[in-house]
Amino acid sequence: MMKDGSSVEDGQSPKADAPDHKVNRGLSIADLVMRAFAALGTLASGVTMGTTNQTLPFFTQFMQFSRATYNDLPTFTFFVIANGIVCAYLVLSLLLSIFHVIRSAAVITRVVLIVFDTVMMALLMAGASAAAAIVYLAHKGNTKVNWFAICQQYDSFCGRISGSLVGSYFATIGLIMLIILSAVAISRS
Amino acid sequence: MMKDGSSVEDGQSPKADAPDHKVNRGLSIADLVMRAFAALGTLASGVTMGTTNQTLPFFTQFMQFSRATYNDLPTFTFFVIANGIVCAYLVLSLLLSIFHVIRSAAVITRVVLIVFDTVMMALLMAGASAAAAIVYLAHKGNTKVNWFAICQQYDSFCGRISGSLVGSYFATIGLIMLIILSAVAISRS
Repeated sequence: MMKDGSSVEDGQSPKADAPDHKVNRGLSIADLVMRAFAALGTLASGVTMGTTNQTLPFFTQFMQFSRATYNDLPTFTFFVIANGIVCAYLVLSLLLSIFHVIRSAAVITRVVLIVFDTVMMALLMAGASAAAAIVYLAHKGNTKVNWFAICQQYDSFCGRISGSLVGSYFATIGLIMLIILSAVAISRS
Repeated sequence: MMKDGSSVEDGQSPKADAPDHKVNRGLSIADLVMRAFAALGTLASGVTMGTTNQTLPFFTQFMQFSRATYNDLPTFTFFVIANGIVCAYLVLSLLLSIFHVIRSAAVITRVVLIVFDTVMMALLMAGASAAAAIVYLAHKGNTKVNWFAICQQYDSFCGRISGSLVGSYFATIGLIMLIILSAVAISRS
Protein backbone atom coordinates (compact mmCIF):
# COMPACT_ATOMS: atom_id res chain seq x y z
CA MET A 1 0.00 0.00 0.00
CA MET A 2 2.72 2.45 0.91
CA LYS A 3 6.36 2.88 1.72
CA ASP A 4 6.56 2.87 5.50
CA GLY A 5 8.14 5.97 6.98
CA SER A 6 8.89 4.20 10.27
CA SER A 7 11.74 2.22 8.69
CA VAL A 8 14.23 4.21 10.79
CA GLU A 9 12.76 2.87 13.99
CA ASP A 10 12.63 -0.62 12.45
CA GLY A 11 16.35 -0.33 11.77
CA GLN A 12 15.95 -1.64 8.21
CA SER A 13 17.56 1.13 6.16
CA PRO A 14 18.51 4.07 8.35
CA LYS A 15 21.04 5.45 5.85
CA ALA A 16 19.27 8.47 4.34
CA ASP A 17 15.69 8.11 5.54
CA ALA A 18 15.97 10.30 8.64
CA PRO A 19 16.35 13.73 6.97
CA ASP A 20 13.80 12.85 4.24
CA HIS A 21 11.44 11.75 6.97
CA LYS A 22 11.71 15.12 8.75
CA VAL A 23 11.30 17.16 5.57
CA ASN A 24 8.26 15.08 4.54
CA ARG A 25 6.70 15.61 7.97
CA GLY A 26 7.27 19.34 7.53
CA LEU A 27 5.60 19.18 4.10
CA SER A 28 2.68 17.25 5.63
CA ILE A 29 2.17 19.89 8.32
CA ALA A 30 2.29 22.66 5.67
CA ASP A 31 -0.30 20.63 3.69
CA LEU A 32 -2.57 20.41 6.75
CA VAL A 33 -2.40 24.14 7.54
CA MET A 34 -2.89 25.23 3.91
CA ARG A 35 -5.79 22.80 3.48
CA ALA A 36 -7.54 24.24 6.55
CA PHE A 37 -7.10 27.80 5.24
CA ALA A 38 -8.35 26.81 1.76
CA ALA A 39 -11.44 25.23 3.37
CA LEU A 40 -12.09 28.48 5.27
CA GLY A 41 -11.70 30.44 2.01
CA THR A 42 -14.31 28.37 0.17
CA LEU A 43 -16.64 28.47 3.20
CA ALA A 44 -16.40 32.27 3.41
CA SER A 45 -16.95 32.62 -0.36
CA GLY A 46 -19.91 30.25 -0.46
CA VAL A 47 -21.63 31.81 2.55
CA THR A 48 -20.99 35.40 1.41
CA MET A 49 -22.40 34.74 -2.07
CA GLY A 50 -25.21 32.53 -0.77
CA THR A 51 -26.52 35.18 1.64
CA THR A 52 -26.25 38.14 -0.72
CA ASN A 53 -29.38 40.03 -1.65
CA GLN A 54 -30.41 43.64 -1.93
CA THR A 55 -33.85 45.14 -2.15
CA LEU A 56 -34.31 48.48 -3.85
CA PRO A 57 -37.21 50.69 -2.70
CA PHE A 58 -38.28 51.52 -6.26
CA PHE A 59 -38.48 50.17 -9.79
CA THR A 60 -35.86 51.76 -12.04
CA GLN A 61 -36.04 52.39 -15.73
CA PHE A 62 -33.94 49.42 -16.79
CA MET A 63 -34.75 46.89 -14.06
CA GLN A 64 -38.03 45.03 -13.82
CA PHE A 65 -37.18 43.70 -10.37
CA SER A 66 -36.44 45.55 -7.19
CA ARG A 67 -34.77 42.74 -5.25
CA ALA A 68 -31.46 41.21 -6.34
CA THR A 69 -30.38 37.81 -5.00
CA TYR A 70 -27.44 35.67 -6.04
CA ASN A 71 -29.68 33.04 -7.63
CA ASP A 72 -31.11 35.50 -10.14
CA LEU A 73 -27.99 34.56 -12.09
CA PRO A 74 -27.43 30.79 -12.61
CA THR A 75 -23.65 31.33 -12.68
CA PHE A 76 -23.72 32.48 -9.05
CA THR A 77 -25.70 29.39 -8.07
CA PHE A 78 -22.98 27.26 -9.70
CA PHE A 79 -20.38 29.29 -7.78
CA VAL A 80 -22.09 28.55 -4.44
CA ILE A 81 -22.44 24.83 -5.26
CA ALA A 82 -18.79 24.56 -6.41
CA ASN A 83 -17.57 26.26 -3.23
CA GLY A 84 -19.75 23.97 -1.12
CA ILE A 85 -18.45 20.79 -2.79
CA VAL A 86 -14.80 21.88 -2.58
CA CYS A 87 -15.21 23.00 1.05
CA ALA A 88 -16.72 19.61 2.01
CA TYR A 89 -13.91 17.80 0.18
CA LEU A 90 -11.20 19.92 1.85
CA VAL A 91 -12.64 19.25 5.32
CA LEU A 92 -12.80 15.48 4.62
CA SER A 93 -9.29 15.47 3.15
CA LEU A 94 -7.95 16.95 6.42
CA LEU A 95 -8.17 13.39 7.79
CA LEU A 96 -5.80 12.11 5.10
CA SER A 97 -3.59 15.13 5.68
CA ILE A 98 -3.39 14.33 9.42
CA PHE A 99 -2.56 10.72 8.48
CA HIS A 100 0.35 12.04 6.37
CA VAL A 101 1.73 13.98 9.35
CA ILE A 102 1.84 10.70 11.28
CA ARG A 103 2.95 8.47 8.37
CA SER A 104 4.99 11.01 6.45
CA ALA A 105 6.46 8.57 3.92
CA ALA A 106 3.06 7.49 2.57
CA VAL A 107 3.04 7.53 -1.23
CA ILE A 108 -0.17 6.00 -2.61
CA THR A 109 -2.44 8.16 -0.47
CA ARG A 110 -0.54 11.27 -1.60
CA VAL A 111 -1.14 10.32 -5.25
CA VAL A 112 -4.84 9.92 -4.39
CA LEU A 113 -4.79 13.41 -2.82
CA ILE A 114 -3.14 14.88 -5.95
CA VAL A 115 -5.88 13.36 -8.14
CA PHE A 116 -8.73 14.80 -6.04
CA ASP A 117 -6.97 18.12 -5.33
CA THR A 118 -6.51 18.62 -9.09
CA VAL A 119 -10.15 17.86 -9.93
CA MET A 120 -11.39 20.07 -7.07
CA MET A 121 -9.07 22.91 -8.09
CA ALA A 122 -10.49 22.70 -11.63
CA LEU A 123 -14.08 22.79 -10.25
CA LEU A 124 -13.34 25.75 -7.96
CA MET A 125 -11.55 27.67 -10.71
CA ALA A 126 -14.49 27.02 -13.06
CA GLY A 127 -16.94 28.41 -10.50
CA ALA A 128 -14.80 31.40 -9.54
CA SER A 129 -13.96 32.43 -13.12
CA ALA A 130 -17.51 32.05 -14.40
CA ALA A 131 -18.71 34.21 -11.50
CA ALA A 132 -15.89 36.70 -12.11
CA ALA A 133 -16.95 37.06 -15.77
CA ILE A 134 -20.51 37.91 -14.67
CA VAL A 135 -19.33 40.22 -11.86
CA TYR A 136 -17.17 42.06 -14.40
CA LEU A 137 -20.21 42.43 -16.67
CA ALA A 138 -22.35 43.62 -13.73
CA HIS A 139 -19.77 46.34 -12.99
CA LYS A 140 -18.85 47.43 -16.50
CA GLY A 141 -21.78 46.33 -18.60
CA ASN A 142 -21.25 46.02 -22.34
CA THR A 143 -22.49 48.82 -24.56
CA LYS A 144 -21.87 46.81 -27.75
CA VAL A 145 -24.51 44.22 -26.89
CA ASN A 146 -26.66 46.47 -24.64
CA TRP A 147 -26.00 44.62 -21.39
CA PHE A 148 -26.37 47.29 -18.69
CA ALA A 149 -24.07 47.64 -15.69
CA ILE A 150 -26.49 46.64 -12.92
CA CYS A 151 -24.00 47.70 -10.22
CA GLN A 152 -25.06 51.33 -10.67
CA GLN A 153 -28.32 50.36 -8.97
CA TYR A 154 -27.26 47.40 -6.86
CA ASP A 155 -24.09 48.77 -5.30
CA SER A 156 -24.11 46.81 -2.02
CA PHE A 157 -25.13 43.60 -3.86
CA CYS A 158 -22.21 44.06 -6.26
CA GLY A 159 -19.79 44.84 -3.44
CA ARG A 160 -20.63 41.57 -1.70
CA ILE A 161 -20.52 39.34 -4.81
CA SER A 162 -17.18 40.89 -5.79
CA GLY A 163 -15.80 40.29 -2.29
CA SER A 164 -17.01 36.69 -2.28
CA LEU A 165 -14.67 35.92 -5.20
CA VAL A 166 -11.60 36.64 -3.06
CA GLY A 167 -11.93 33.59 -0.80
CA SER A 168 -12.43 31.32 -3.81
CA TYR A 169 -9.33 32.59 -5.61
CA PHE A 170 -7.26 32.26 -2.41
CA ALA A 171 -8.49 28.68 -2.05
CA THR A 172 -7.60 27.99 -5.71
CA ILE A 173 -4.05 29.23 -5.13
CA GLY A 174 -3.98 27.12 -1.94
CA LEU A 175 -5.00 24.01 -3.91
CA ILE A 176 -2.26 24.67 -6.50
CA MET A 177 0.25 24.87 -3.64
CA LEU A 178 -1.16 21.65 -2.15
CA ILE A 179 -0.69 19.79 -5.46
CA ILE A 180 2.92 21.01 -5.67
CA LEU A 181 3.58 20.09 -2.00
CA SER A 182 2.25 16.57 -2.59
CA ALA A 183 4.35 16.16 -5.76
CA VAL A 184 7.51 17.22 -3.89
CA ALA A 185 6.68 14.91 -0.95
CA ILE A 186 6.15 11.94 -3.32
CA SER A 187 9.41 12.65 -5.16
CA ARG A 188 11.26 12.50 -1.81
CA SER A 189 9.65 9.24 -0.61
CA MET B 1 19.54 16.07 -10.62
CA MET B 2 17.59 12.86 -11.15
CA LYS B 3 17.40 9.20 -10.47
CA ASP B 4 18.86 7.53 -13.55
CA GLY B 5 16.54 5.10 -15.30
CA SER B 6 19.42 3.44 -17.17
CA SER B 7 20.62 1.68 -14.02
CA VAL B 8 19.56 -1.66 -15.50
CA GLU B 9 22.03 -1.29 -18.32
CA ASP B 10 24.66 -0.11 -15.85
CA GLY B 11 24.07 -3.30 -13.90
CA GLN B 12 23.96 -1.45 -10.56
CA SER B 13 20.62 -2.60 -9.15
CA PRO B 14 18.71 -4.70 -11.68
CA LYS B 15 16.42 -6.28 -9.05
CA ALA B 16 13.09 -4.49 -9.50
CA ASP B 17 13.96 -1.59 -11.78
CA ALA B 18 13.18 -3.30 -15.08
CA PRO B 19 9.34 -3.49 -14.85
CA ASP B 20 9.14 0.01 -13.27
CA HIS B 21 11.30 1.25 -16.09
CA LYS B 22 8.95 -0.16 -18.73
CA VAL B 23 5.80 1.13 -17.03
CA ASN B 24 7.35 4.60 -16.63
CA ARG B 25 8.32 4.63 -20.31
CA GLY B 26 4.72 3.73 -21.14
CA LEU B 27 3.50 6.58 -18.91
CA SER B 28 5.95 8.95 -20.64
CA ILE B 29 4.66 7.99 -24.09
CA ALA B 30 1.07 8.47 -22.90
CA ASP B 31 2.14 11.90 -21.55
CA LEU B 32 3.65 12.84 -24.93
CA VAL B 33 0.57 11.82 -26.93
CA MET B 34 -1.89 13.48 -24.54
CA ARG B 35 0.19 16.66 -24.45
CA ALA B 36 0.17 16.86 -28.25
CA PHE B 37 -3.62 16.41 -28.34
CA ALA B 38 -4.11 19.04 -25.60
CA ALA B 39 -1.94 21.48 -27.60
CA LEU B 40 -4.11 20.86 -30.68
CA GLY B 41 -7.25 21.43 -28.57
CA THR B 42 -6.07 24.84 -27.32
CA LEU B 43 -4.87 25.79 -30.82
CA ALA B 44 -8.24 24.91 -32.36
CA SER B 45 -10.10 26.80 -29.60
CA GLY B 46 -7.94 29.90 -29.82
CA VAL B 47 -8.08 30.07 -33.61
CA THR B 48 -11.83 29.38 -33.77
CA MET B 49 -12.64 32.09 -31.24
CA GLY B 50 -10.06 34.51 -32.61
CA THR B 51 -11.44 34.36 -36.16
CA THR B 52 -15.12 34.56 -35.24
CA ASN B 53 -17.16 37.48 -36.48
CA GLN B 54 -20.55 37.96 -38.03
CA THR B 55 -21.95 40.97 -39.84
CA LEU B 56 -25.67 41.51 -39.92
CA PRO B 57 -27.14 43.37 -42.93
CA PHE B 58 -29.37 45.58 -40.75
CA PHE B 59 -29.57 47.29 -37.37
CA THR B 60 -32.01 45.52 -35.07
CA GLN B 61 -34.11 47.00 -32.33
CA PHE B 62 -31.88 45.94 -29.44
CA MET B 63 -28.42 46.04 -31.06
CA GLN B 64 -26.55 49.23 -31.86
CA PHE B 65 -23.95 47.37 -33.87
CA SER B 66 -24.34 45.20 -36.92
CA ARG B 67 -21.00 43.36 -36.75
CA ALA B 68 -20.13 40.97 -33.90
CA THR B 69 -16.51 40.00 -33.27
CA TYR B 70 -15.04 38.03 -30.38
CA ASN B 71 -13.26 41.10 -28.96
CA ASP B 72 -16.50 42.99 -28.41
CA LEU B 73 -16.50 41.04 -25.15
CA PRO B 74 -13.28 41.30 -23.06
CA THR B 75 -13.88 37.79 -21.65
CA PHE B 76 -13.43 36.29 -25.12
CA THR B 77 -10.16 38.21 -25.57
CA PHE B 78 -8.95 36.68 -22.29
CA PHE B 79 -10.07 33.27 -23.58
CA VAL B 80 -7.99 33.66 -26.77
CA ILE B 81 -4.93 34.88 -24.81
CA ALA B 82 -5.22 32.03 -22.26
CA ASN B 83 -5.48 29.44 -25.04
CA GLY B 84 -2.48 30.97 -26.80
CA ILE B 85 -0.30 30.91 -23.68
CA VAL B 86 -1.27 27.34 -22.77
CA CYS B 87 -0.80 26.15 -26.38
CA ALA B 88 2.71 27.68 -26.50
CA TYR B 89 3.56 26.09 -23.14
CA LEU B 90 2.26 22.67 -24.22
CA VAL B 91 4.33 22.75 -27.43
CA LEU B 92 7.47 23.73 -25.48
CA SER B 93 6.81 21.09 -22.82
CA LEU B 94 6.77 18.41 -25.54
CA LEU B 95 10.58 18.62 -25.41
CA LEU B 96 10.61 17.68 -21.72
CA SER B 97 8.04 14.99 -22.43
CA ILE B 98 10.30 13.49 -25.16
CA PHE B 99 13.19 13.64 -22.67
CA HIS B 100 11.06 11.58 -20.23
CA VAL B 101 10.47 8.91 -22.87
CA ILE B 102 14.25 8.55 -23.16
CA ARG B 103 15.07 8.97 -19.46
CA SER B 104 11.92 7.47 -18.01
CA ALA B 105 13.07 7.47 -14.37
CA ALA B 106 13.58 11.25 -14.23
CA VAL B 107 12.00 12.72 -11.10
CA ILE B 108 12.90 16.40 -10.68
CA THR B 109 11.85 17.33 -14.22
CA ARG B 110 8.51 15.56 -13.69
CA VAL B 111 7.90 17.64 -10.55
CA VAL B 112 8.69 20.75 -12.63
CA LEU B 113 6.15 19.58 -15.24
CA ILE B 114 3.49 19.05 -12.53
CA VAL B 115 4.04 22.62 -11.26
CA PHE B 116 3.65 24.20 -14.72
CA ASP B 117 0.88 21.81 -15.84
CA THR B 118 -1.14 22.75 -12.74
CA VAL B 119 -0.71 26.50 -13.24
CA MET B 120 -1.54 26.21 -16.97
CA MET B 121 -4.58 24.06 -16.25
CA ALA B 122 -5.82 26.74 -13.84
CA LEU B 123 -5.27 29.46 -16.47
CA LEU B 124 -7.03 27.46 -19.19
CA MET B 125 -9.96 26.60 -16.90
CA ALA B 126 -10.28 30.27 -15.93
CA GLY B 127 -10.45 31.30 -19.59
CA ALA B 128 -12.81 28.52 -20.63
CA SER B 129 -15.24 28.98 -17.73
CA ALA B 130 -15.35 32.76 -17.98
CA ALA B 131 -16.10 32.40 -21.70
CA ALA B 132 -18.68 29.69 -20.97
CA ALA B 133 -20.50 31.99 -18.54
CA ILE B 134 -20.74 34.69 -21.23
CA VAL B 135 -21.72 32.17 -23.95
CA TYR B 136 -24.49 30.90 -21.66
CA LEU B 137 -25.69 34.47 -21.19
CA ALA B 138 -25.54 35.12 -24.94
CA HIS B 139 -27.73 32.07 -25.55
CA LYS B 140 -30.21 32.39 -22.68
CA GLY B 141 -30.01 36.05 -21.73
CA ASN B 142 -31.30 37.04 -18.30
CA THR B 143 -34.73 38.59 -18.03
CA LYS B 144 -34.22 39.55 -14.37
CA VAL B 145 -31.46 42.02 -15.19
CA ASN B 146 -32.53 42.77 -18.80
CA TRP B 147 -29.53 41.21 -20.50
CA PHE B 148 -30.84 40.10 -23.90
CA ALA B 149 -29.98 36.80 -25.59
CA ILE B 150 -27.88 38.11 -28.48
CA CYS B 151 -27.78 34.66 -30.10
CA GLN B 152 -31.25 35.23 -31.56
CA GLN B 153 -29.60 37.70 -33.93
CA TYR B 154 -26.05 36.39 -34.13
CA ASP B 155 -26.72 32.68 -34.62
CA SER B 156 -23.58 31.76 -36.59
CA PHE B 157 -21.41 33.90 -34.25
CA CYS B 158 -22.86 32.07 -31.24
CA GLY B 159 -22.46 28.68 -32.88
CA ARG B 160 -18.75 29.28 -33.41
CA ILE B 161 -18.00 30.70 -29.95
CA SER B 162 -19.86 27.79 -28.35
CA GLY B 163 -17.90 25.31 -30.46
CA SER B 164 -14.61 26.96 -29.58
CA LEU B 165 -15.15 26.05 -25.91
CA VAL B 166 -14.99 22.33 -26.68
CA GLY B 167 -11.27 22.25 -27.54
CA SER B 168 -10.44 24.19 -24.38
CA TYR B 169 -12.38 21.86 -22.11
CA PHE B 170 -10.82 18.79 -23.78
CA ALA B 171 -7.38 20.33 -23.21
CA THR B 172 -8.28 21.02 -19.56
CA ILE B 173 -9.23 17.37 -19.06
CA GLY B 174 -6.00 16.42 -20.86
CA LEU B 175 -3.95 18.57 -18.46
CA ILE B 176 -5.68 16.97 -15.45
CA MET B 177 -4.72 13.54 -16.86
CA LEU B 178 -1.14 14.77 -17.45
CA ILE B 179 -0.83 15.88 -13.80
CA ILE B 180 -2.10 12.49 -12.61
CA LEU B 181 0.23 10.63 -15.03
CA SER B 182 3.23 12.59 -13.73
CA ALA B 183 2.25 11.94 -10.10
CA VAL B 184 1.98 8.20 -10.77
CA ALA B 185 5.32 8.18 -12.65
CA ILE B 186 7.06 10.02 -9.77
CA SER B 187 5.59 7.64 -7.19
CA ARG B 188 7.04 4.68 -9.15
CA SER B 189 10.53 6.15 -9.57
